[in-house]
Amino acid sequence: MAINELFQQEIKALNLGNAGFASELQSVGVEVTNLDWEPPARGRVELIAALEQLSHRPDIDAANQEAFNRYASSVPVLVDIRRALDVIPGMTPDTFFHAGPPLTWERMPGPMRGAVIGALIYEGRAATPDEAEDLASLGAITFKPCHEHGAVGPMAGIISPSMPVFVIHNQTHGNDAYCTMNEGLGKVLRFGAYSQEVIDRLRWMERVLAPGLQKAIRLSGGIDLRALIAQALHMGDEVHNRNKAATSLFFRTIAPYLVQAELPGDELAAILNFINGNDHFFLNLSMPACKAMLDAAHGVEKSTMVTTLTRNGTDFGIRVSGLPGRWFTGPAQMVRGLYFPGFSEADANPDIGDSAITETAGVGGFAMAAAIAIVQFVGGKPQDALHYSNRMYEITLQENPSYSIPIFDFRGTPTGIDVRKVVENNILPQINTGIAHREAGVGQVGAGLVNPPWECFAGAILALAEQYGAGGEAKG
Amino acid sequence: MAINELFQQEIKALNLGNAGFASELQSVGVEVTNLDWEPPARGRVELIAALEQLSHRPDIDAANQEAFNRYASSVPVLVDIRRALDVIPGMTPDTFFHAGPPLTWERMPGPMRGAVIGALIYEGRAATPDEAEDLASLGAITFKPCHEHGAVGPMAGIISPSMPVFVIHNQTHGNDAYCTMNEGLGKVLRFGAYSQEVIDRLRWMERVLAPGLQKAIRLSGGIDLRALIAQALHMGDEVHNRNKAATSLFFRTIAPYLVQAELPGDELAAILNFINGNDHFFLNLSMPACKAMLDAAHGVEKSTMVTTLTRNGTDFGIRVSGLPGRWFTGPAQMVRGLYFPGFSEADANPDIGDSAITETAGVGGFAMAAAIAIVQFVGGKPQDALHYSNRMYEITLQENPSYSIPIFDFRGTPTGIDVRKVVENNILPQINTGIAHREAGVGQVGAGLVNPPWECFAGAILALAEQYGAGGEAKG
Repeated sequence: MAINELFQQEIKALNLGNAGFASELQSVGVEVTNLDWEPPARGRVELIAALEQLSHRPDIDAANQEAFNRYASSVPVLVDIRRALDVIPGMTPDTFFHAGPPLTWERMPGPMRGAVIGALIYEGRAATPDEAEDLASLGAITFKPCHEHGAVGPMAGIISPSMPVFVIHNQTHGNDAYCTMNEGLGKVLRFGAYSQEVIDRLRWMERVLAPGLQKAIRLSGGIDLRALIAQALHMGDEVHNRNKAATSLFFRTIAPYLVQAELPGDELAAILNFINGNDHFFLNLSMPACKAMLDAAHGVEKSTMVTTLTRNGTDFGIRVSGLPGRWFTGPAQMVRGLYFPGFSEADANPDIGDSAITETAGVGGFAMAAAIAIVQFVGGKPQDALHYSNRMYEITLQENPSYSIPIFDFRGTPTGIDVRKVVENNILPQINTGIAHREAGVGQVGAGLVNPPWECFAGAILALAEQYGAGGEAKG
Repeated sequence: MAINELFQQEIKALNLGNAGFASELQSVGVEVTNLDWEPPARGRVELIAALEQLSHRPDIDAANQEAFNRYASSVPVLVDIRRALDVIPGMTPDTFFHAGPPLTWERMPGPMRGAVIGALIYEGRAATPDEAEDLASLGAITFKPCHEHGAVGPMAGIISPSMPVFVIHNQTHGNDAYCTMNEGLGKVLRFGAYSQEVIDRLRWMERVLAPGLQKAIRLSGGIDLRALIAQALHMGDEVHNRNKAATSLFFRTIAPYLVQAELPGDELAAILNFINGNDHFFLNLSMPACKAMLDAAHGVEKSTMVTTLTRNGTDFGIRVSGLPGRWFTGPAQMVRGLYFPGFSEADANPDIGDSAITETAGVGGFAMAAAIAIVQFVGGKPQDALHYSNRMYEITLQENPSYSIPIFDFRGTPTGIDVRKVVENNILPQINTGIAHREAGVGQVGAGLVNPPWECFAGAILALAEQYGAGGEAKG
């Protein structure tokens, strides 16, 4: 075709990447098909250079295989409930653990401040919210991330010394993980509420629920949480924002032991009703189960596998197996989702909580195709749920040998986020999550979908290249 | 194109219907695409004539709407457990109810004979299987179909006078439905086993399980089974051969009331362990829930809606709303499925049991797209499960307003089989089911998929035309 013929035809344009070019053509009436494309590593040369140093590296592949194997061979077993002060390494009478990467009181968002206020009242350290704020701002409390102490906490993730915590033992690798018990929905500490009903509930959980469950768990000889999660994924859960099946299975498992525990009749009934009344009860078991499995995979030299995704409501932070002790952070993002009646995005705090440990372990947002009904809670269509899970295979190391997705012909869930694949493919991990009100004292306002900021992975790939980039030798 | 050119080209044939024509062409090397097509009503002129008399009939459409509304407005509530003799109309000390359409002892298949033998021993009427067979063959027992007495029974479906039965009350329309309690898998009466362990379990169920559950059910004030089923469909159940979620939800619901019932500690623990140990426990609640809803829809003049699909292991029988009191039968079919280790199709009895009441009510095989993981139990691929549900929309009246399928964007399940649509489209209802050994005394050998015989629907359409075909006037 001669050039002059070409220009006599109607022009149809295909635009790759930057949509700005397309809109100009469209404004003069040209039909444009826009293709959502970005160059690897968003085209940033220093990241591409880092990626090149870490690609086609059998030593890194072997390290990732080792990290993945440690995760996949882990059997997380619920073995006990203990007081945080008595069991979590690093807990002291003046320490509070919190969700996400490290931060100071000054940088804490509203819901986390609310939870700190509530925990100080619950601990008997303050009588009023004002007193509690004064105490916190004067440095009476040392704040540390749950994640650096084998623990995880949903939303604000505050663990104070007197709180009872589940103890999950990794039967294969010997490490333990810890998490508080789930309080239910609505006005609860983890979403930043601290009214009297919140404090009363926490005290009842300490005085009645924890001792009762402790007896039952000890009588059971330990409950294999990986087996419960595997079943729940075939029953419409993804064990982050949908835990209805897993809670039901846990209830079935524990109820006969609660009966055997010879508790006072009214307490037994109250415990059963409390668990039965909260379809999210299992969240605080799925999270430490994931944590126990992923902590075993942390600290494998040269591994580019992500072992933590977490948020403190101000920053998003990730940790990488081959770079133990380091955090890579960026700003916590706003959640796109469904709001409870009377609330809107203007009320929302940015992304918060350790619960993205589920996505890090190949469930949660990564397993949404197993939990189609969740779109009624977090928004979107069934096709979106399939799409999110499908996309995560592009940034993960392997298919999960324990957790599978029926609608994908029982394919294992996409598991083991590889920093290299995230950067190369410009695909960020898909997280689903609850939304907290941005002010202290209110509580949950919705649920939705969110991604980590790109900065976390950009920072991690640069650090990995610096540490392991030179011809495959660790620089120490 | 001239004829001579046509025959100089390579021949590609499209064959509609009868595959015999295709194989002849294929045998001489011609490429043939075989299209699975049949003329309406399988081309039988008398059926086409009947169909024509019943088509485009606003009066029949209105009758079907009325029948469907009676089904859809029904709220089946578990209100009690009673002794069959005390509560089921028509039960006498010498009556046994059985699954499927009516049949005599002589025509009973092995598993039903086995269950009759077991029930006679359980009732104390016979000491040995031989004694029991003599009694049964001498006419000491009157056999009647469960379905004609508001009852349903899985597999052999034997209900004898002393057996405790769930009482499900249709809160909207006032009718009651009844079903025994599920014994578990393996060697159980409903699959034709009658060994001492089977009898002992039945006696324990009568002596311990039934009184305990009765107290709890009464304390609960009634349990809405439609609400439990609706939730279970979003949790991977179709409540025929997959009842894991529904059993879990029922367990969660009833456990607090069992605790309140102040039973002896060992009995409470035994009851909880028994329900927890059997993921099919809810089947004997989903069945009478469906029965209660469908009985309300039975007996609407001119309605062509099917209100019963059931099998006695020898015959398959259906009942139609507009033709109360009549059965339309054909030979029970062999089930295509997965067999337990050590068994094969040679061991299998033809299709048996009242459990196809679930498919009649728009769940079971009709809702397999909500229960993808079931293919591991009944065979096939996830795509097959989607296909089965999809196809059922072609033979049903409406989408279910209470039960929905998440992967179909929460579309209601296909519900209310229309005899006219089955005959017109040559599509038979899709049933999934357990498989019993063909000999008395053995038990379950597998699970799979099956359809009713065509004869049931051919018979029904002729009877409908005879009754209602003349210009829309009932002949009385």
